[in-house]
Amino acid sequence: MDKPLILVTNDDGINAPGLRKLIEIMRKLGDVVVIASELVMSGMAHAVTIQTPLMPRLIKEEESYKEFITNGTPTDNIKLGKHRLLDRSPDLVVSGINHGSNASINIIYSGTMAAVLEASIDGIPAIGFSLCDYMPDADFSHVEGWIEKITQKVLNEGLPEGVCLNVNIPRISDEEIKGIKVCRQAEARWVEEFEERKDPYGRTYYWLGGRFVNGDKRNETDEKALADNYISVVPVQFDFTAHHVVDKMNFD
Amino acid sequence: MDKPLILVTNDDGINAPGLRKLIEIMRKLGDVVVIASELVMSGMAHAVTIQTPLMPRLIKEEESYKEFITNGTPTDNIKLGKHRLLDRSPDLVVSGINHGSNASINIIYSGTMAAVLEASIDGIPAIGFSLCDYMPDADFSHVEGWIEKITQKVLNEGLPEGVCLNVNIPRISDEEIKGIKVCRQAEARWVEEFEERKDPYGRTYYWLGGRFVNGDKRNETDEKALADNYISVVPVQFDFTAHHVVDKMNFD
Repeated sequence: MDKPLILVTNDDGINAPGLRKLIEIMRKLGDVVVIASELVMSGMAHAVTIQTPLMPRLIKEEESYKEFITNGTPTDNIKLGKHRLLDRSPDLVVSGINHGSNASINIIYSGTMAAVLEASIDGIPAIGFSLCDYMPDADFSHVEGWIEKITQKVLNEGLPEGVCLNVNIPRISDEEIKGIKVCRQAEARWVEEFEERKDPYGRTYYWLGGRFVNGDKRNETDEKALADNYISVVPVQFDFTAHHVVDKMNFD
Repeated sequence: MDKPLILVTNDDGINAPGLRKLIEIMRKLGDVVVIASELVMSGMAHAVTIQTPLMPRLIKEEESYKEFITNGTPTDNIKLGKHRLLDRSPDLVVSGINHGSNASINIIYSGTMAAVLEASIDGIPAIGFSLCDYMPDADFSHVEGWIEKITQKVLNEGLPEGVCLNVNIPRISDEEIKGIKVCRQAEARWVEEFEERKDPYGRTYYWLGGRFVNGDKRNETDEKALADNYISVVPVQFDFTAHHVVDKMNFD
């Protein structure tokens, strides 16, 4: 039987340790093609490149393994993979391992999860993995068994139609992790705190910063699961409709 | 009584005719502050600028009116407005008028709708307006009464918590428009067709193109409303959780 074809991408760029770790894990599970951005695409969300052209380059090729870099976004990378760079449709798309949490409202800003959603729109099973540690030298040693377990299950069983997974792993040792919890996106948000500075010409500029504020006290959220030392898995879909108000609203 | 404060933005950039039309309409309804990107941000989705700083500039000031340009994305513009450029929290955020449809799956790629969602995350009523005509010289003459009607209703009555509006207007004359339909996002998608070219050095590059494919035959979708000559209004929320599978999925 052919090994599954796994497309790997991320939003921290081709050189991120989190991507390297994910590649290492996926090469145990199938044939792997990496398509990742040359530059850091953190915070690029679902951006697509339409003002400029895309120029992917094959930079490495071994048996059952290829690695491309591009000048595009994570979403572009999935589109390029599906329609130009892969010989056949991938059996799975994985994205990450992100340096930093994509739980709660972070999903909306995340290039990592955009790649996952983009694959899902085209019916490809897809999983985003994030470690709740944004440092470039974050310790990924404890994630391997968990990522392998979740990925193998999805390879074996697939995912419900139109659904992909947002997996977040707490920044604790393997022994402390209590297990995996399937949960919902917490209703948290960022409260911006722009830092104001002056450039050498006296002009004001701002660096985006912020505080993460979680006012969602329910038990079944991803933030709660992470705080309780569980890996959070949120099944994710891309319908933005507020179904609960469609029938109540009118403009007559 | 004070006039409402309306923050206006878009993703086609400060010079887009659609933005100018929206400003004209909003100045009849309240005090207006425009914060728009200097460059075209079409397709930027919910991207936030975290690799570089933001430098907004006030370029116009009149009674009850201010206009800023920025080097940021539509989402950045909302964040800058809320936390740095406005004296008080806006009563309403409007975004557009987008040159091109943001119905169906287009919402996920749209900078116009990202600005609207960003405002909504912070509890500000917000509406995105799009005309289903992507041409820079699109005819906006028929949109005014409809946009005014929808905006005035939201100013008067507010919106349900966590809900914003995605309004799309068909490219037909005012007489042909049959009314406003509140509906759901159609499950359509883009099938990419990258155009392959060679640069002067012989390197391959790709321009993103594509065909819009709507396989969603249900009656109550935005695409159906637009095809039937209605203005579509989709109430939109930002919870990505696939609630229907949370309880059915487990990794034990």
